[in-house]
Amino acid sequence: MEYLKLPGEVKVDDKGDRIMGSSNKPLAGQKGGLGSPGAGEEPHADLSQIYSKDLLPTTGGERVTCIFFQELVNILIGYIFKSNERSSKILDFHHPHQLKDNLEGFSLDLPDQPEPLEQILVDCRDTLKYGVKTGHPRFFNQLSSGLDLIGLAGEWLTSTANTNMFTYEVSPVFLLMEEILLKKMQSIVGWAEEEGDGIFCPGGAISNLYSILVARYDFYPEVKTKGMSALPRLALFTSEHSHYSVRKSAAVLGMGSDSVQVVPCDESGKMIPWELESSIIEAKAKGLVPFYVNATAGTTVYGAVDPLAAIAVVCHQHQLWLHVDAAWGGGLLMSRRHRVKLQGIERASSVTWNPHKMMGAPLQCSAILLKKRGLLQECNQLCADYLFQNDKHYDMSYDTGDKTIQCGRHVDAFKLWLMWKAKGSEGFGSQVNKCLENAEYLYKQLQRRADFKLVLESKPEHSNVCFWYIPPSLRKLPPGPERNRRLHKGGRKKKAHHHCPDGILKLQVAPQIKAKMMEEGTTMIGYQPLGSNVNFFRCVFSNPATQQEDVDFLLEEIARLGYNL
Amino acid sequence: MEYLKLPGEVKVDDKGDRIMGSSNKPLAGQKGGLGSPGAGEEPHADLSQIYSKDLLPTTGGERVTCIFFQELVNILIGYIFKSNERSSKILDFHHPHQLKDNLEGFSLDLPDQPEPLEQILVDCRDTLKYGVKTGHPRFFNQLSSGLDLIGLAGEWLTSTANTNMFTYEVSPVFLLMEEILLKKMQSIVGWAEEEGDGIFCPGGAISNLYSILVARYDFYPEVKTKGMSALPRLALFTSEHSHYSVRKSAAVLGMGSDSVQVVPCDESGKMIPWELESSIIEAKAKGLVPFYVNATAGTTVYGAVDPLAAIAVVCHQHQLWLHVDAAWGGGLLMSRRHRVKLQGIERASSVTWNPHKMMGAPLQCSAILLKKRGLLQECNQLCADYLFQNDKHYDMSYDTGDKTIQCGRHVDAFKLWLMWKAKGSEGFGSQVNKCLENAEYLYKQLQRRADFKLVLESKPEHSNVCFWYIPPSLRKLPPGPERNRRLHKGGRKKKAHHHCPDGILKLQVAPQIKAKMMEEGTTMIGYQPLGSNVNFFRCVFSNPATQQEDVDFLLEEIARLGYNL
Repeated sequence: MEYLKLPGEVKVDDKGDRIMGSSNKPLAGQKGGLGSPGAGEEPHADLSQIYSKDLLPTTGGERVTCIFFQELVNILIGYIFKSNERSSKILDFHHPHQLKDNLEGFSLDLPDQPEPLEQILVDCRDTLKYGVKTGHPRFFNQLSSGLDLIGLAGEWLTSTANTNMFTYEVSPVFLLMEEILLKKMQSIVGWAEEEGDGIFCPGGAISNLYSILVARYDFYPEVKTKGMSALPRLALFTSEHSHYSVRKSAAVLGMGSDSVQVVPCDESGKMIPWELESSIIEAKAKGLVPFYVNATAGTTVYGAVDPLAAIAVVCHQHQLWLHVDAAWGGGLLMSRRHRVKLQGIERASSVTWNPHKMMGAPLQCSAILLKKRGLLQECNQLCADYLFQNDKHYDMSYDTGDKTIQCGRHVDAFKLWLMWKAKGSEGFGSQVNKCLENAEYLYKQLQRRADFKLVLESKPEHSNVCFWYIPPSLRKLPPGPERNRRLHKGGRKKKAHHHCPDGILKLQVAPQIKAKMMEEGTTMIGYQPLGSNVNFFRCVFSNPATQQEDVDFLLEEIARLGYNL
Repeated sequence: MEYLKLPGEVKVDDKGDRIMGSSNKPLAGQKGGLGSPGAGEEPHADLSQIYSKDLLPTTGGERVTCIFFQELVNILIGYIFKSNERSSKILDFHHPHQLKDNLEGFSLDLPDQPEPLEQILVDCRDTLKYGVKTGHPRFFNQLSSGLDLIGLAGEWLTSTANTNMFTYEVSPVFLLMEEILLKKMQSIVGWAEEEGDGIFCPGGAISNLYSILVARYDFYPEVKTKGMSALPRLALFTSEHSHYSVRKSAAVLGMGSDSVQVVPCDESGKMIPWELESSIIEAKAKGLVPFYVNATAGTTVYGAVDPLAAIAVVCHQHQLWLHVDAAWGGGLLMSRRHRVKLQGIERASSVTWNPHKMMGAPLQCSAILLKKRGLLQECNQLCADYLFQNDKHYDMSYDTGDKTIQCGRHVDAFKLWLMWKAKGSEGFGSQVNKCLENAEYLYKQLQRRADFKLVLESKPEHSNVCFWYIPPSLRKLPPGPERNRRLHKGGRKKKAHHHCPDGILKLQVAPQIKAKMMEEGTTMIGYQPLGSNVNFFRCVFSNPATQQEDVDFLLEEIARLGYNL
């Protein structure tokens, strides 16, 4: 058995991120052909004259296939190694016009004639070179970060199997795995054995859309054939800190975004239950018919968990559908220490939970869970019998194609299944705990530093920690409107964003630091304004690769980049 | 440089599909540790005591990472080799209860405690073993088939990069590639340089949904905030042979499936333009407001292409949005020989085109193309400035997150970009031509055989060929209602499908053959009834691995399995 070369033994090219063998050397004694490795002899391959048509399924393509994939895997493993090196840059930033301009020979143009496999490998290397290392321990920019290698293995297998979550006939194993995962997640949410339904779908926004779609159908099944004009004017409720996908879904589903009533939050970003209740009463008074409440378990910015149990009481009282958007917070359910924070989630009629966030599954992996069984199928099925034959010789309840608003559906379940095997429920629990420990560590560091200020004084509930950097020039000012105004006031003037022309026009402290950070490529963290709070940084932890030293680095780096602002 | 072992040199285990090295041998002289390969010495590794926590990002995890991925890649490459062997089974069919019952030690259950990497690799091997080899040259079951190895390489890289089509900040290269691909596809459709917009989305059904969503917004922008109740009663038009996603989308979007007017087709499955026109007039007379016509370029069953130019004339006259669902037929545009069949597509306001079908890209890869620029963004944006900051230092028009109904979005563009590099436009053209040559070959074989009967007498327009097998017991009957009744009449009685209780209750000839085929695992082909035609087989060609010998095999196999019915 031969292994991939380890980095220490590997030839790295001048661009510094290529872990390849001798593919550029033409093979002595062969005319553009491929070398045959003899015993103890180093094989060579010249891929400059070999094309994709020489790979399988072309007869005799096995050898080229092996060589090509070996070279590819070397590039990919090399990339993984680099992503795990703290000293390596997270990104090598270029503006769109630079990348489109054949930067260092990297051409994005689509040719008429084929390019040789050697060039394809160079393209792969360049694609990674100019991308963003989201698995880097100092990448804090997104709720999804890190690169779980078991999950990655799952994705490689999934793409090799190249099938569709459509019918049992073409996806027997993956459909069963999906069912088992969904049942497990339902039981973790706290639903009874005989309850629970669901599906994996392409992202949390679509999961949230499903919840509204199914809730609407549950109350008004005639909507499926007759549309919204057969229904009274509906009202949905969600907090001001919730994800925008609730409003977007209402627009898509033909309810209109105005049907979404925005419920105020307390200072920590949690929906206020009595505000929900008065919002419901007010809507009724206006002649609207409330039917759906979205509670968030883990808001995007603050990581706040709405008081689920209290909200469930309100929903029960008014007979409303309670959806819990736990896209971000669902992972906490895996931790014995933290799952208590989601108490009340078991009373939800539906739950969005994205294992691609806190549980570290590769993108995408999002589940919509529904308490009431069969509703999803009823809501979406159209009995297209030319696609879903009802005269098959097996149990056709696994033919899930008609349950979805998609037709074909990507296999998103396998990677999670494989990760669960490799980590066990316990492993996910420790991973979540570690992320929250990092958040607490950051929180404590921020508490004791004068050059930073926390947005929320309370200990983080999830792994979100929000803060301002206060440059020396502003440090003499006391916290308050004047400092905020100065924090807000930026440097060079920017043109308005043409999509949102009413946007803020000047770069503030945080955007300026972020811009420098991206140019330097040392770390990445997001920022945003929220309510009356001017632009602040939001750090989130979902990457198990991150250590306390990375948290320290982040703060030092922000302080370094922002010192002279 | 060391390569993967070639199949000839490889140890295959007793399950017959494992191409692995010595991972089961404990390494001499080490306690459960990993071997270090010396010069000329065969390295060993015992993964039975190694866990996912020993992989990167754990310090020093490089070695375990290499070994694990080498083993994994061996399994995957071995699977690819097997998929390309005509003699290997396409599937090893088991019923759901069998697979759930720890078949041969393959447990689908999710553990609390981690399993060692050795078990993870066994799980991977078993997952493939009990799955369906969709890349096998004799897999004809789905519009998507084959396994393009460059596309696969693209998927492996995509999952390694593990990022999101959200903002330029986290996906600079992939977003530019998407833009370049969409522009190319738009120019191939025939739109002018200054026209064209679009996005890759999770499957053709969602692409079709986008087309209706955007069309509705174009006519009635107030729908976004006010919902359907602010609009007149709309009417959509699509042919009786079109994909069910038009009806499903109308239901999802709150128009109701009844708003979809089904336009009759001619015998070959093409929409009849004058029927469309009278359908529009009729709808208007009923007080409905027509706004959208879906024309299909490549129907699911017959592969029929609606007369696009004639339909465009009707749409123009009535000022309706013309969408062309070319999910399946779009690939024909890549062929100089066949693109003429889609003449008129350039007059569409939107086009669905799935490169994961005829162009052979791995699942999923579907594009919605829109002629009018900016509409997609206007229709979907909510200016969530906590996610899409408008004060960044780069050109924010590449931040596409607010264009979509998703939030995060999987990178579906890269694999197609890489394939385009490796094949060139020309390569896609030849691939499409070859699939249509296979279809024509099958058509000719069926014409000259007495034991088969074509559903359509005319030469196939796309790569779909539909036919009945007539067992000897029915061959003396002339074609007509009596033979159809007997073809229809099946063997053992089946329970009604609980989802579609009005379904056909007996196994007919085609379903019986299909059931036997799946038990034997030699080939796979779909069947369905359509209109007044009782269950017939539909063969489709999208896998470049398929040769004429495979077509011959298919017919012989059907004849063999069905002979005694």
